[in-house]
Amino acid sequence: MPRRVDHEERRRAIAEALWRIACARGLDGASLRDVAAEAGISLGQLQHYFSSKDEMLVFALKYLGGLAEERIRARLLGLNGPPSPRDVLRETVMEMLPLDDASRTGNLVQIAYFVRALHDERLRGHAKEGIPALRAFFADQVRTGIERGEVDASRDADAEAMLLIALTDGLTTHLLLEACDQDETKSLLDGHLDRLFTP
Amino acid sequence: MPRRVDHEERRRAIAEALWRIACARGLDGASLRDVAAEAGISLGQLQHYFSSKDEMLVFALKYLGGLAEERIRARLLGLNGPPSPRDVLRETVMEMLPLDDASRTGNLVQIAYFVRALHDERLRGHAKEGIPALRAFFADQVRTGIERGEVDASRDADAEAMLLIALTDGLTTHLLLEACDQDETKSLLDGHLDRLFTP
Repeated sequence: MPRRVDHEERRRAIAEALWRIACARGLDGASLRDVAAEAGISLGQLQHYFSSKDEMLVFALKYLGGLAEERIRARLLGLNGPPSPRDVLRETVMEMLPLDDASRTGNLVQIAYFVRALHDERLRGHAKEGIPALRAFFADQVRTGIERGEVDASRDADAEAMLLIALTDGLTTHLLLEACDQDETKSLLDGHLDRLFTP
Repeated sequence: MPRRVDHEERRRAIAEALWRIACARGLDGASLRDVAAEAGISLGQLQHYFSSKDEMLVFALKYLGGLAEERIRARLLGLNGPPSPRDVLRETVMEMLPLDDASRTGNLVQIAYFVRALHDERLRGHAKEGIPALRAFFADQVRTGIERGEVDASRDADAEAMLLIALTDGLTTHLLLEACDQDETKSLLDGHLDRLFTP
């Protein structure tokens, strides 16, 4: 083992071990010791970075959120020309959905956290922390759409933002259950956006 | 203890013990023994009815589904006059949402099952079993709405059904996280139905 450890690097390696467990068998019943073993370190070393499973989950979620943001940015840069409000909404929700391994991992970790948060008020605070920011971001896109004459002015931007988030979360459940396939999910979301972006 | 036990009654009492645990602290880590203790019976007696946690969950979900159907029927009978397709859709989704203790319990048990199903193909089969039936039922309402001139004929009934189910499931998550309140959730769903029922 190298004498000097990059602490941020180590935290990330632990978070990634947690994701591998989340994807392979879920986090129910997975202990700190299981995660340490998966990361190839001792329980003591892991506890140097995280004193509880919840602390580890909060870090893993933030790290995953950051990676998802990078992927969304890359998607938008990959479009021809500057993205329209509709492009921004579409690429963001497509990245939120479990359509590939990276987003599937993110979703599974989020669900593990969500289930713990249902019975823990403090965790619930963390779990819902990101929602108002995402909602405000989506509402801004809808408002810009209205200003550009791409969305009917009678639409309530804040309500549309929440509808789109809820729809994406619901479709995530059905994709993970394999009750809806990828093509159908994409076409349902495109249909929803088509109607929103009808002046 | 009475010599003759009503077996269906006993199964229901066990399912209800399972719900109480689901609501109070979640089902992660809850053992058959915990459920037996909550139901006031021995582990052996419980195993006479259910040999595994999953078998118990499947029964509890079916029982909960039956109770939810009864509540939806009662809601529809409580309306003034025969229900319109919009009434049927509205009352059904309002009953699916965790807006009171009964539906909150149903949702918490469903989530516990969903999380187990993510990592178990056989359970996933059960978990998604009810979705096509619900979707077909919703699609029928939309088609009737089109026939009655209440829904624009360009709408795809099958797609609208899935959108409404996904939206309801997504709003359920946000209600449980307290990221959305009851009034807002109802008004978002009513707004969605208003636009669907615009000829």
